[in-house]
Amino acid sequence: MLYLVRMDVHLPHDMPAEKADAIKAREKEYSQELQRQGKWQQLHRVAGEYANYSVFDVESHDELHTLLSGLPLFPYMTMKVTALAHHPSSIH
Amino acid sequence: MLYLVRMDVHLPHDMPAEKADAIKAREKEYSQELQRQGKWQQLHRVAGEYANYSVFDVESHDELHTLLSGLPLFPYMTMKVTALAHHPSSIH
Amino acid sequence: MLYLVRMDVHLPHDMPAEKADAIKAREKEYSQELQRQGKWQQLHRVAGEYANYSVFDVESHDELHTLLSGLPLFPYMTMKVTALAHHPSSIH
Amino acid sequence: MLYLVRMDVHLPHDMPAEKADAIKAREKEYSQELQRQGKWQQLHRVAGEYANYSVFDVESHDELHTLLSGLPLFPYMTMKVTALAHHPSSIH
Amino acid sequence: MLYLVRMDVHLPHDMPAEKADAIKAREKEYSQELQRQGKWQQLHRVAGEYANYSVFDVESHDELHTLLSGLPLFPYMTMKVTALAHHPSSIH
Amino acid sequence: MLYLVRMDVHLPHDMPAEKADAIKAREKEYSQELQRQGKWQQLHRVAGEYANYSVFDVESHDELHTLLSGLPLFPYMTMKVTALAHHPSSIH
Amino acid sequence: MLYLVRMDVHLPHDMPAEKADAIKAREKEYSQELQRQGKWQQLHRVAGEYANYSVFDVESHDELHTLLSGLPLFPYMTMKVTALAHHPSSIH
Amino acid sequence: MLYLVRMDVHLPHDMPAEKADAIKAREKEYSQELQRQGKWQQLHRVAGEYANYSVFDVESHDELHTLLSGLPLFPYMTMKVTALAHHPSSIH
Amino acid sequence: MLYLVRMDVHLPHDMPAEKADAIKAREKEYSQELQRQGKWQQLHRVAGEYANYSVFDVESHDELHTLLSGLPLFPYMTMKVTALAHHPSSIH
Amino acid sequence: MLYLVRMDVHLPHDMPAEKADAIKAREKEYSQELQRQGKWQQLHRVAGEYANYSVFDVESHDELHTLLSGLPLFPYMTMKVTALAHHPSSIH
Repeated sequence: MLYLVRMDVHLPHDMPAEKADAIKAREKEYSQELQRQGKWQQLHRVAGEYANYSVFDVESHDELHTLLSGLPLFPYMTMKVTALAHHPSSIH
Repeated sequence: MLYLVRMDVHLPHDMPAEKADAIKAREKEYSQELQRQGKWQQLHRVAGEYANYSVFDVESHDELHTLLSGLPLFPYMTMKVTALAHHPSSIH
Repeated sequence: MLYLVRMDVHLPHDMPAEKADAIKAREKEYSQELQRQGKWQQLHRVAGEYANYSVFDVESHDELHTLLSGLPLFPYMTMKVTALAHHPSSIH
Repeated sequence: MLYLVRMDVHLPHDMPAEKADAIKAREKEYSQELQRQGKWQQLHRVAGEYANYSVFDVESHDELHTLLSGLPLFPYMTMKVTALAHHPSSIH
Repeated sequence: MLYLVRMDVHLPHDMPAEKADAIKAREKEYSQELQRQGKWQQLHRVAGEYANYSVFDVESHDELHTLLSGLPLFPYMTMKVTALAHHPSSIH
Repeated sequence: MLYLVRMDVHLPHDMPAEKADAIKAREKEYSQELQRQGKWQQLHRVAGEYANYSVFDVESHDELHTLLSGLPLFPYMTMKVTALAHHPSSIH
Repeated sequence: MLYLVRMDVHLPHDMPAEKADAIKAREKEYSQELQRQGKWQQLHRVAGEYANYSVFDVESHDELHTLLSGLPLFPYMTMKVTALAHHPSSIH
Repeated sequence: MLYLVRMDVHLPHDMPAEKADAIKAREKEYSQELQRQGKWQQLHRVAGEYANYSVFDVESHDELHTLLSGLPLFPYMTMKVTALAHHPSSIH
Repeated sequence: MLYLVRMDVHLPHDMPAEKADAIKAREKEYSQELQRQGKWQQLHRVAGEYANYSVFDVESHDELHTLLSGLPLFPYMTMKVTALAHHPSSIH
Repeated sequence: MLYLVRMDVHLPHDMPAEKADAIKAREKEYSQELQRQGKWQQLHRVAGEYANYSVFDVESHDELHTLLSGLPLFPYMTMKVTALAHHPSSIH
């Protein structure tokens, strides 16, 4: 099942650079592992913003929440989730 | 270049059913032709709404506008376009 | 899987009363059939508004969209869908 | 009487982890006690967000406010309360 | 139990004046009957707008919804309901 | 002249408890004095929120502003003021 | 007492030109009479919009509402009223 | 003096095609005359929408309003005007 | 040329009182000097809020920005500027 | 390809003045270099706000994001990007 997720990142300005870098490194690793598993199907940067639009393909709302809330950047993000259904005009 | 587009359809309640059906049939044909050309890469229904999220892959803003404004349903839609850039954590 | 859905109804003021009554009667029948099947688990009126909050328990986004878009009042409604996951403090 | 409540949690980033954990532990205990009493009828996680949708069944606005303002996380939450009435199409 | 209700009226511009006047006359009668019963405790015009802020004192959400949805102007109104609890600093 | 005022309180999370308690105690005293004078006619808690809806009966905008800006919690509040006029259907 | 009022005009597109012209002529006359009385102190066009910002100097909320609701264009306007108090830095 | 103006066009769905075409033809002529005079410096389509962002270079708010309110499409547009000042980092 | 400006002040809660007082004193002096010059024509307190509505009469957008950005409180304010044009019904 | 970008700057109030000045100096240099290259075509101050509207002329969304995210003030800005297409009435 597909979910469109928009994530906006808001790092506190007083977070030490090393801490921020460490979190981002773990975020990248975590994200790429999920991409390789096929669960995080797409990951796009919103041009001009510290934000992304992603598409997840998972079994259930619970699995989606587990994956998203496990993101190292989760405490610093606002999320907006949209459930995507099949479109009758889609050729896929 | 990729663009995320959300389209919400608002057909007037007093549009005759045959006219609405004709427009929708042309819309489907138009959409599937663009999908086959690879320009309309993805087309998903927003669950519960007369709306879709789509991804377009075109050469320029001008090409995007030409495609979108040519939609048979264009006069009855509100559109929201987001430019998508490459994300540094994407494995693609 | 659970979905919270808020539905707001906007009937055109110039719809003849018989037509409105007929749609509402079909809506009620449709809704109660889905409730009896256990798919439409809860249905509450928003106090003071021509709107409801509902909880659906279905297999997928596609099933949800099929049920919602089949509502006789669907062309006159705005919908807001929220995917509900298990809460770690829930005793259920 | 039923109330739908959406709660969004915003913990300050500089709150020490032990303090946050202690508050969350008390929150869980408090929540489960109210669930066992039947006052906090439903508790669902909003998928992808540090937020929940809950249904309370209490005697009055005063009782609702007493329960909600007693939540250990209350100072860190924004709340949205909706009064739910009986729906004429509900089979319950 | 007290509820604050804001009502905004939007009459269609093409409603014949006699019909509008008849609805408003019934609205006034209905409103004053509820005021005399003590259920519609306060009724104030929002200065400059075709809107009011009202306070209702009723037994339940169901009673509130029954009263509000029975308003002759209900099909032409948008409503916003806020549940009011006792304030610890109130001297009443 | 009547004014409806909604006040939302946002105390900084790092304010020491004694300071917060002292401000709240002064706020209560100040509020009750104005209630006894008949200027702060009504004070209701918004159920579930650290907020209130109040009705003031004062001589002028200037008097209203003087009273509101003198609130000990004023620096921590957002206010929304609505001027209330007589409603032609009111029986008062 | 001063009130800042923003008025936005939305004439129905199917209103006959003569009717619109007649309403606007009465509006102008009404407005200028109130300006000459000193009650409608200022009247400014919002550049680029069919809207104005006005300042009224009247005795009470009731007088303001009577004046505004008497505007020939009132049924076609949305209004936003702000109560203006004396500013301690004003030299007037 | 420069003004950024966003214009969104909302033509009524029941406007006859010939009337719409005639208005659009006059709009184009009007617009191009102002562009040739140097008053309408820039005119860009918002990709995917029946809207534009324009930059005007005129003498005063009054001149801007005269130009904008004279647009044949003005009755069918919503406008948003932003006054643009010189930026200290601009090399122009 | 006239501009309506709404200014909302948000002083950080941890700013020392002396610093705040010093800024406000300079703000008052600055404001009154501009009022005496006729550039800051009107200054009104928004009743109940730490905000004002002002009218400026200056030569250009650049002069307006220079005056506003020179306000001692500027770093702590949000501003909303509206260009005001002559209204055809104004008697001035 | 053209993009309209609105940038709003929010510097933390506790940033030392020297640090802020250093960032702003680098921002100016960076901005002027891009202006000289023709990529940052226009840069306008929003009158009364610490914000700008800019027009960029770049090859792709990726180039735009690289330029914007490289701004020294980027961590302190909110951005809004709009893709601009050719307008059929433009004389350019």
